This record gives sequence, structure tokens and C-alpha cells, in this order.
Amino acid sequence: MNRLSFASDYASGCHPEVLRRLTETNLSRSAGYGLDEYSEDAREKIRQACRAPEADVFFLAGGTQANAVVIGCLLNPWQGVISAETGHVCGHEAGAVEAGGHKVLTLPQREGRLSAEDVRRLLERFRADEARDHLVEPGMVYISQPTESGTLYSLAELAELSAVCREYGIPLYADGARLAYALGAPENDVTLPDLARLCDAFYIGGTKCGALFGEAVVFPRHGTVPHFFTMIKQRGALLAKGFAAGVQFGALFTDGLYERIGRHGTEAAARIRAGLAACGYPLLIDAPTNQVFPVLTPAQEEALRKEVDMTFWETLDDGRSVMRLAADWATREEDVGRLLEAFRRCADLR
Amino acid sequence: MNRLSFASDYASGCHPEVLRRLTETNLSRSAGYGLDEYSEDAREKIRQACRAPEADVFFLAGGTQANAVVIGCLLNPWQGVISAETGHVCGHEAGAVEAGGHKVLTLPQREGRLSAEDVRRLLERFRADEARDHLVEPGMVYISQPTESGTLYSLAELAELSAVCREYGIPLYADGARLAYALGAPENDVTLPDLARLCDAFYIGGTKCGALFGEAVVFPRHGTVPHFFTMIKQRGALLAKGFAAGVQFGALFTDGLYERIGRHGTEAAARIRAGLAACGYPLLIDAPTNQVFPVLTPAQEEALRKEVDMTFWETLDDGRSVMRLAADWATREEDVGRLLEAFRRCADLR
Amino acid sequence: MNRLSFASDYASGCHPEVLRRLTETNLSRSAGYGLDEYSEDAREKIRQACRAPEADVFFLAGGTQANAVVIGCLLNPWQGVISAETGHVCGHEAGAVEAGGHKVLTLPQREGRLSAEDVRRLLERFRADEARDHLVEPGMVYISQPTESGTLYSLAELAELSAVCREYGIPLYADGARLAYALGAPENDVTLPDLARLCDAFYIGGTKCGALFGEAVVFPRHGTVPHFFTMIKQRGALLAKGFAAGVQFGALFTDGLYERIGRHGTEAAARIRAGLAACGYPLLIDAPTNQVFPVLTPAQEEALRKEVDMTFWETLDDGRSVMRLAADWATREEDVGRLLEAFRRCADLR
Amino acid sequence: MNRLSFASDYASGCHPEVLRRLTETNLSRSAGYGLDEYSEDAREKIRQACRAPEADVFFLAGGTQANAVVIGCLLNPWQGVISAETGHVCGHEAGAVEAGGHKVLTLPQREGRLSAEDVRRLLERFRADEARDHLVEPGMVYISQPTESGTLYSLAELAELSAVCREYGIPLYADGARLAYALGAPENDVTLPDLARLCDAFYIGGTKCGALFGEAVVFPRHGTVPHFFTMIKQRGALLAKGFAAGVQFGALFTDGLYERIGRHGTEAAARIRAGLAACGYPLLIDAPTNQVFPVLTPAQEEALRKEVDMTFWETLDDGRSVMRLAADWATREEDVGRLLEAFRRCADLR
Repeated sequence: MNRLSFASDYASGCHPEVLRRLTETNLSRSAGYGLDEYSEDAREKIRQACRAPEADVFFLAGGTQANAVVIGCLLNPWQGVISAETGHVCGHEAGAVEAGGHKVLTLPQREGRLSAEDVRRLLERFRADEARDHLVEPGMVYISQPTESGTLYSLAELAELSAVCREYGIPLYADGARLAYALGAPENDVTLPDLARLCDAFYIGGTKCGALFGEAVVFPRHGTVPHFFTMIKQRGALLAKGFAAGVQFGALFTDGLYERIGRHGTEAAARIRAGLAACGYPLLIDAPTNQVFPVLTPAQEEALRKEVDMTFWETLDDGRSVMRLAADWATREEDVGRLLEAFRRCADLR
Repeated sequence: MNRLSFASDYASGCHPEVLRRLTETNLSRSAGYGLDEYSEDAREKIRQACRAPEADVFFLAGGTQANAVVIGCLLNPWQGVISAETGHVCGHEAGAVEAGGHKVLTLPQREGRLSAEDVRRLLERFRADEARDHLVEPGMVYISQPTESGTLYSLAELAELSAVCREYGIPLYADGARLAYALGAPENDVTLPDLARLCDAFYIGGTKCGALFGEAVVFPRHGTVPHFFTMIKQRGALLAKGFAAGVQFGALFTDGLYERIGRHGTEAAARIRAGLAACGYPLLIDAPTNQVFPVLTPAQEEALRKEVDMTFWETLDDGRSVMRLAADWATREEDVGRLLEAFRRCADLR
Repeated sequence: MNRLSFASDYASGCHPEVLRRLTETNLSRSAGYGLDEYSEDAREKIRQACRAPEADVFFLAGGTQANAVVIGCLLNPWQGVISAETGHVCGHEAGAVEAGGHKVLTLPQREGRLSAEDVRRLLERFRADEARDHLVEPGMVYISQPTESGTLYSLAELAELSAVCREYGIPLYADGARLAYALGAPENDVTLPDLARLCDAFYIGGTKCGALFGEAVVFPRHGTVPHFFTMIKQRGALLAKGFAAGVQFGALFTDGLYERIGRHGTEAAARIRAGLAACGYPLLIDAPTNQVFPVLTPAQEEALRKEVDMTFWETLDDGRSVMRLAADWATREEDVGRLLEAFRRCADLR
Repeated sequence: MNRLSFASDYASGCHPEVLRRLTETNLSRSAGYGLDEYSEDAREKIRQACRAPEADVFFLAGGTQANAVVIGCLLNPWQGVISAETGHVCGHEAGAVEAGGHKVLTLPQREGRLSAEDVRRLLERFRADEARDHLVEPGMVYISQPTESGTLYSLAELAELSAVCREYGIPLYADGARLAYALGAPENDVTLPDLARLCDAFYIGGTKCGALFGEAVVFPRHGTVPHFFTMIKQRGALLAKGFAAGVQFGALFTDGLYERIGRHGTEAAARIRAGLAACGYPLLIDAPTNQVFPVLTPAQEEALRKEVDMTFWETLDDGRSVMRLAADWATREEDVGRLLEAFRRCADLR
């Protein structure tokens, strides 16, 4: 019997609907670099979904790339980006932001979230510092929805962050690598139009949300970044076959597929959370999206690793391990059942 | 009737064999970042095709990205890359090499090719310059096979370039964006094992040669670039679903598909060249691969643009235009026939 | 009567001995770029003072520049520099390290110092992280002697840091912007030969220690950084009239001038500390070098700012301010007297 | 008897008037970073000399640094700088512009000068190129006055260049490393107010024109570059003792010293040119400023190198060498006499 695959939400190809469209369009001939009709159709569908008719939309291959290019373009050379210390740009991007010449200015996080108050305090402290001309100016705010911990900003929290950013005249950018699983969460009250209204830039994740590859960068206001096409090219992020991303996002934004994908992954994770709770596993964070963070004893970890692909998250002070389980659009009910069965068997191991 | 599409070799999706494998494997679960079995299988097939059993092979999404990451990693910070003035890294990459901190040191070209003699002269001139510590040191050589003009380095020419590079202790890197069409050309005498033997790095183009996306960077000698995986990540070029590139390259290197693809595009271009010659069109360059560069009078250009998607290449001093026609694995015999018919009709326009 | 100038240790020109040498040599004709005899003489004197006969020594104009060039050259592109969160490279260099493409990896500090234990823990955590290929590798350690807080690493502490660095194979670099004032402190037990033995690179500060400009970067082991001359040039840090730095460092390392300068500034600061203590001012840190950090009530601050140039350091939670007073080679006994008199007058203000 | 020193114009310290002012002000106490009164006084004098009352003026340590910082700040990330192929930024700055992320777009030169027509053609070609979004946009023009070959732009030529730049909306920047020697040349008709009127940025060279170090960057229109102070700091180019540059430029712009210095160097060079012509030495370029480029036979070179420090410039096709002789403010009449005597003695060597 196969091992259970819950290590990531990028372990399968693409949603069958997406594959169907790739197959249907495979032999058609299109212009390169996203200047094709499939891409234009997808851009238009995204504009409508975001109720942002003037939005500039670009398709890039992956998330670290999208972050690096967008952040590099939104910042002036003397500026840095504010991020929670757990932000993806802080740690797991191999220094991509710094390689682009910018400092990541970290703030403490609460369950993966930045608070508007902390951001305001940092901005005020900078303004008040007599030596500020020797410092990196905080030039934008980076958040993720959902966060790296799987938690969500509420609409109120997002509105507060947005208000601080606008008061201080700096852009707010949201990394939506797993955005479908936010949109699919019952707790979520932040819609795509909210993101478009409150953020200056965000990306709608494809790679982890049903596409084979691709992220849709959205600038709700036209012309936010001049020459962004050339900047994408310069960063090596321009897809020659941009139409292949366009076809995929066209499919994702047809008949509510993106939301369905999100719901599927989020519901699977909810079943996992409930099942783990039922047999007594503590969770590091009670996150409402597609990731689950059970705390395991060494014996549990050893036993479960034999059957289940999980991602090691961190070690607690008492020696227990936190693992990350991810569900996605491809997670099968039977595999969730087998997973819970495996955890149940190990529940009493110490 | 549809317009004829000869503007580029990246206008269709992927070869049906490649699509078949993507479909077959779509719902399997794999490790991320190229650490999966499909990628390992593809790497092994490439090592065998190159007779380079120790080669390090990495899959990146596109060509400009591959060039930027490889060049950035092969150069020391005080070095620049030697390229023909028509090299892709010189012009059409939006300054990606410079954005990575390095100068492109240009040399004149003959039909797109660098000569070993010119490279040697530049290296000697640098060594002899009393002010060389104030100059950018030439630190590697960049070539393309085929070149941007569709021409080929012969094995003798490549061996000469390689010998100069080794004498001076700098790496030789070949951009193989269209490598299949070189391998498929009857005039070609440079094999994959030759490239692996004579170059320090090269990439096997996927995007223009049958894949939906992806280029396979090959370092024939293990360990040529330390921490290349992290550098790929830092540059935003690491594919989360690396397996999707692995699946594609696995298909391309099964049962000689890559060579067949190359032969198909090259033969189609040969028929186009012959047909254009038969009705009197001059060619800018008589290139033996998948690109054709007819010279058109203004009236011909105007008339043909109504039916044919072509790429504008350059304007000659006498006011005539050079266009680029590209064939590829997807070029259909009937479209070549229609293309030649269209050119025949316009042959006498002045 | 003039205001009292204690805001910085870079407020006067150069030590009269240094000026005398600049004047004596002013009309002589020298080779450029530090390839002159004055520079070679100064390098040799520094090698002797450091008991590092093979050391490579380079003169740069300023400290931020020296840090940026040295750190940029000691790190590989996938690496970052470990620094105390109060390190000069963390805050007051306007993001120079990041502009050079590298992350600053911060650790907590104790009175401005890094602990070897914290460094070891960070290095171990990196090695143990299963995702380390996605992270910035800690590639060197940056410290300052004295620290930004005016404190000193003891020889034992420095040896411990050095041992950890060598165990993990990464270089240790010491910023000596105020090194004279460390060498001049009675508490100090770290000599120049100790620095040369325990560090892989350090710089001997000139700008704040008697020179008009200039820092002497020392690599105790020859060839530590290849092509460093060209890297200095590329970073815009190569002085055409390098001899002017050579002349100054030649003077500073003749007849113990550098040590005398350090002793003068440190003794002046000691008198200030003693005087402030005598009239009841608390100090933020009891630092043994040339900087003094008194804590002032709002009324004291307001009154003293009318007479004394000081640098604002930080605000305490209770609303009191910390100011920085700096002494240097040019501090006059009478000015210290007037300063203490002024503080005495304000001692009872609340 | 001493060797004759004509290898460079940066071989002596500073003009005695400058040294006198450095000495007079040596023990005064000033604010750091150019925020002092000497610097403000020098800035005001420069504004008056340029008849540019709103100009922003900054003092940096050296020329490569000034070029790198100014060019980096005037360009957007997708742009490159147009330069003559002999421009200093092209060759002898070790790739500083590229290390800052920008391409140098070279044009042919005539005696070191760019032509407005060539610039216009390049700008038009870029605009007309259908693939321009894949190219580096020409974003500014870099020239030197005098050029690297010692020649001068006439006022008419400069006005033409300026007009093209303004028509296309890109800044014009002039490198004035040897500006005094342009201002001091009888042939010159470009004044400081002309530069201020026609350029968007330029620097007034100090290092080669009487200062110990320092270049004055002038932006005739206030606010041309936002946050330039911080950018200087980030690039490691901010002098802690900025007042030392201010004192020097204050002296240089008092009582016409800068012009006198220029006249002295230029007249000395004119005597050298006349003397060499009188004994039959051909000159590579008949440049009217402080540099002379005699063509020597191998025997002449060998003999003269025994007595004279010269800079090797290039080898002609016939094997003869071009040398560079530089005069400056410190060149003594007797040394010119000895130089000409030496050349006279070697005039017949073949």
C-alpha cells in the first residue's frame, strides 16, 4: 500500500479541469509572453472576480519569484519591506529579497499575522529617529493570506493594516500562494474584491491551488508598477509560453473552480483537525485553512513517519515535534480516512 | 482560414507524447523541488544521452532564467561574460546579466558565432593590460547552439573554443534553447556527448523543443557550482512542482523523441528555405536549423503580413526588411505548403 | 563661549602629527591607488604591529564602505552575515549589506556583544534544518571592537567566538572603527596580534582615531580574498590618492601614536564617567572606552542641549533619554571640565 | 636626480591653498556627514559659480564612486546608461555600473566624444523596436568633460546632446573628474553655468584638480534624486568627516583657485605638446586640456621610461606605443623643461 502523501500541497499535477483545458488548447498557436488571447481571457476573468476592472494582471511561474519581482518593483532602492518574522520572504526564500538589494524589516507575529499597531509603531519610530537618513526606510508591508501558519487575516484586520499603509503612503502586498484555501474557509471574511480594494498588489496562487504552475500577480490599480513586463523579463520570470499559464487561470476562474478547489482542501483539513482532536493530538495552531500542525511525541513521530509523508515544522522545548500536514484539491477522502486511522493507532505512543 | 503561424517556435503547448506523460502522471504524488523520482529518472536519461554519468542536472522554467542563474553562478563578482554581440544575453534579456551584477563583454560575430581566435585575443589583451586590475576580467564564454541566427558551431569550432577556455581557465557555457533543432540538422556534427565533453555547462532547451516549459541545465562535471539548488531558489527559479519538468524531460529523452522533434522542425525549415529560394527570395543567412530569415521588399512584407505571423528581424540599409520564420515540432506539412504558396504569390511584388 | 562638542568622535580633522606628515609629503609625487611607498610603509608597520608578516592590508575611505566591501567579498552569494541586532551593519548603514545582496542574520546582544554560544546555536540550527537548502546559510560573523555600545570583547570571549567560527569553517570579521579606544582602555586584554590571530579580517579605524579619513582593512592571512583590489575599485572604494591614506596610517603607526590617541580618548571618557557618577547621573552601560551614555530626565536634557552637542541614543520606557557623549584624540581637558560643570549644574533637574 | 612624474594628475597631495585651509580648520569641531558649515559654505560657492541657486550639491570621495552612485540613482531598474565606448564607466571602473545592476549601452566615439546624432539614432531605434520590452531601455547619457582622451565638447555639441536628451526625456550626466582643466583651456567655451543649464547632473572633480580627495556632485535642479543622502550612505560613499571635503571645495571655489589650477595644468600641457611637436613626436590626439598622448617608437619608449613616469595608453597597429603624459596644478616649469629635454634627446631613436 502506498505511503500517505500529506507533506505538501504541491505534490500532484493540476486539477483535471485545468488539464482538460491544457489538452484542448495544446495544439493551438498563440503569441508568446502572455500577449495571447487565453491570457487576456484569464486576466479579464480575474479582474471580474476581483471587481477591479482596471487591474494589471501578470502570470509568473512561482511564488518566490512573484514575491521577489513584486517587492523589488514596489520598493525604492533605499527602502525595505516589513514582514512578520515568520513571513515566507524572511526565511524560506534563500535571501531572494536581499539578493534583490532590499532588507526585510521583521516584526513579531501572532499566529503568523502582523498587527496594524506594530506596523504603525515601526513607521512612527522610523519617522521620529533623528538618524533616519542612515536607516533603511520601511517602504511596504508584506503579508500572506493565509499566513505561513495557515491562519487568516480577518477583514477588519486587513482593513486596519491597509489604513496604516495608506496613512503612511506605502503599499500593502499580500502573498496568496494558498489563497484558494483562504477563500474556501468558512471562517474567512476577506473576498477577492476586498483584497483588490485594500491591497496595492497581491498574487493569486496557482501552483498550490490547482495549477501545474503559475501565480497571478494583481495590481488593482492600473500602472502601479511601470515597465513591469520588462522587470519580469529581467528577473528571468517571463514565461515564453505565457499562454500555458493563461489557459490554466482561465480554467481556475471558470464556473467557480478556484473556490471549489479551496473548499475541497480546506474541508479535508478540517476533517483531519477534527479527527486528530478526537484522538487527543494537540495542535500547534488551530488554523482554519488547508494546513494542520499536530504536535507529536518522539514515538508517535517515529511510527507515523513510516506510513505518512509529513513536513517537519519545528521542535518544541519539551522535545516534542510539530509536523505540518497539508491537504489540497487532490486530497482523497479515503486517504484522509487512512491518515486518521494511522494517527489513531499511534495516539497512545509516548 | 486561419492565419499562418510562423512567428516563433514557442506558439504551441507541448508535444503530444509529453502531454500524454503529464496526463498519466497527473494525479500521482511527488516530492517537491525536483527531488522526485520523475526528475531523477529524467536526469539519469540525460546523463546517459550526454555520456556524462557524473553530470549535475537541474530543471528551470525558462531560458533567460537559466542563463541568468548559470552565468551568475559561474562568474566571480569581478568577472564578466564574453558573448557575441548578437548573443541572447546581450540584447533580448532586458539586462538580466547586468541586473545580476555582471558585465557582458561583447565580441564581433560571424553569422552569430564567436571565433576562438577573437576570444583568445580578448583574453590576451586583458592579461597584457597594465590596468587590468581596474577592468572587468573576462570570466567565461557564452555561446548558443544553434546561435540566435540559426547557425551551428562545427565540432572543430567548438573544440577550438573549448581549448582556448581551458587554456585560460575559464568555463564555456552553451545556451541550447533550440538545441533539438541543432541535433536534428544534417549539417550538425556536435552531439550531446560532445557538448558534455567540451563545455562546462549547457542547457538543453525544452520550451522551444517540445515541452510546455522547462530547460535542463547540465554541468557535466559534478560539483561545478556549489549550492546551485539554493541559488536557483534565491533567483526565484526553483519550481515547486519540479516533477512536472522531470516528467516532460523524461518523455523527451525516451525513444529518441528529442531528436525526432529536432528533425521535424529542421526539415520543415529546410522545405521553407528551398521553397523560398525557388521563387527568388534572398535569405539573410543560410542557417541550417529551424529558423529562416527571408529578405522582403516593403510590398512583399505588407502583403505577407496579412496572412502570415512572422517576426520582424531587422531593416537593411536599402530599406528591405528581414523577417524570421520559425518551424518547430508542431509545424504541419500543409501549413508549410500554404506558407510557400503565399510567398510564391508575392514573389514579384517590389 | 563655544558650545561643547561631544556629539561624535569624528568632529575634528586629524591629529597634528598626522597633519604634519600630510604637509611634509604634500608635494611629493607618488603612484596612485595605494601602490606607493608611503602606503607600503604603512602596510609594513601595520603588519608588524599585528605580528602578521603575511597580512594583506588595504586602505579604504570609510567604515560603512569597509564593512560592505569586506562582507561582500567574504560571503558566497547564498550566504548571510551573523551580527548582533545592535551591530552597525544591521541598522545604521542604510542597508548597505543588503544592497550588496546579502542578508544580515541577527542575534540578541548583551551590552552590544554576541555570545559564542548563540552563534553556535544558530549554526547548529541551520545545519539541522531539513529545509536548509531554502534558507540563507550563515556564512560569517561580524562583531565590533569596541562594540556600538562602547563595550569590549575580552580575549576569552573573542577566542571562543573564533573557535566556533573555525569549527564551522566561517570567517570572523571585526569592525574596528574605534579600535584605538579599545586598545587604549585599561580593561582591554585584546591586542592587535590577538585580533590578527583570532579574526580572518578586521579593520583598524582611522577616521575616528586620528586620521582625516581612512580605515585599514587587514586580512591576517595572505590571499584571503582574491582580487580584493578590483572589488574595492568596483565598489567605488579605491582611493586614487591612496598615498594620502598611507601617509596617515604611517604616522598613526609611528612611535605608538595610535595607542596614545586611544588612551587620550579613553581617559577623557573615564573622567567624564567618573564625574557624571559623582553627581548622580545613571549610565545606560558602563562602557570602558571613549563613549559615555548618561540617562537624562527631560529637564536635564533640555537644559544640557543648550550648551552641549550630544547624540540622542534612545528613549527609556520611563520617558528618560539616553544620550551619547564621545571623547576622542582631540578632546581637551578644559572642555571635559566645562562639560562636567554643566552636568553638575543640571544634576538636580527633574 | 629624481624621475620625472607625468604618469597621472593624482600624484601629489593638495594645492597649498587647500592644505592651508585644512590646517587652519583642523582642530575646529564640526557636524558629521556634510551637515557642517564648511560644507554649506562650499555648496553655496558652487551654486554661485554655477549660477544654479537651487542646486543640490554633495561631496563624495572619488570619481568611480560618484559615477556609480549618480548613475544608479538616475536610472530606473529597467534602464541602462549610454556612453561612448571609451567612457570611463565602460572600461576602467571594474564593472561598477553593472555591479549596481545596469547595462552600459556603448556608442562609437570620435576623439572621446559622443555625437548627439548617434544618441538620437540609438533612442529612435529603441523606440521603433517591436521587441523593446525585452531590451534594456536607454535611460540616461553619460559624457565626460574633458573626455578620457582630453578633448572637449563645444558648447554647441553639449547643447545638441542636451536637446536630444530632453526631447526623449532622459537625463544628461557629465563626469568632470578633470573639469578644471577643461575650464582652463583657451579652446573651451563651456562654462559651469552652461553645464548647470544643459546637464541634469555633473560632478566637479576635486581629486585631480587640487584636492586631496573629493568630488562635488551637482544636481542643478533641486530634488532631482530623492533620498540621495541615504543612497550615498548605502553605497558606502558618505564621508563621516564630510567637512574635510567641504573645507577643500570651499578653498577651491575661493578667489578663482579652481580656474587657476585648471589653467596651470592646461598651460603646462600646452608647453609639452608644443615642445614634442617641435622635435617631431606625433600625437595620437591633439587634445587641448591637461593630457598629452605622444606616439613613441619602441626605442624611444625604452629610453624615456628610464627617466619619465608615463602611463601606457595603447599599442598602434605598426607596433608603436601611445603614452599618456598628464600635467596638473603641481607641475613645475623646470620639470616640463627636463621632460622636453629628455624627449628631445630621444627624438631620433627608432
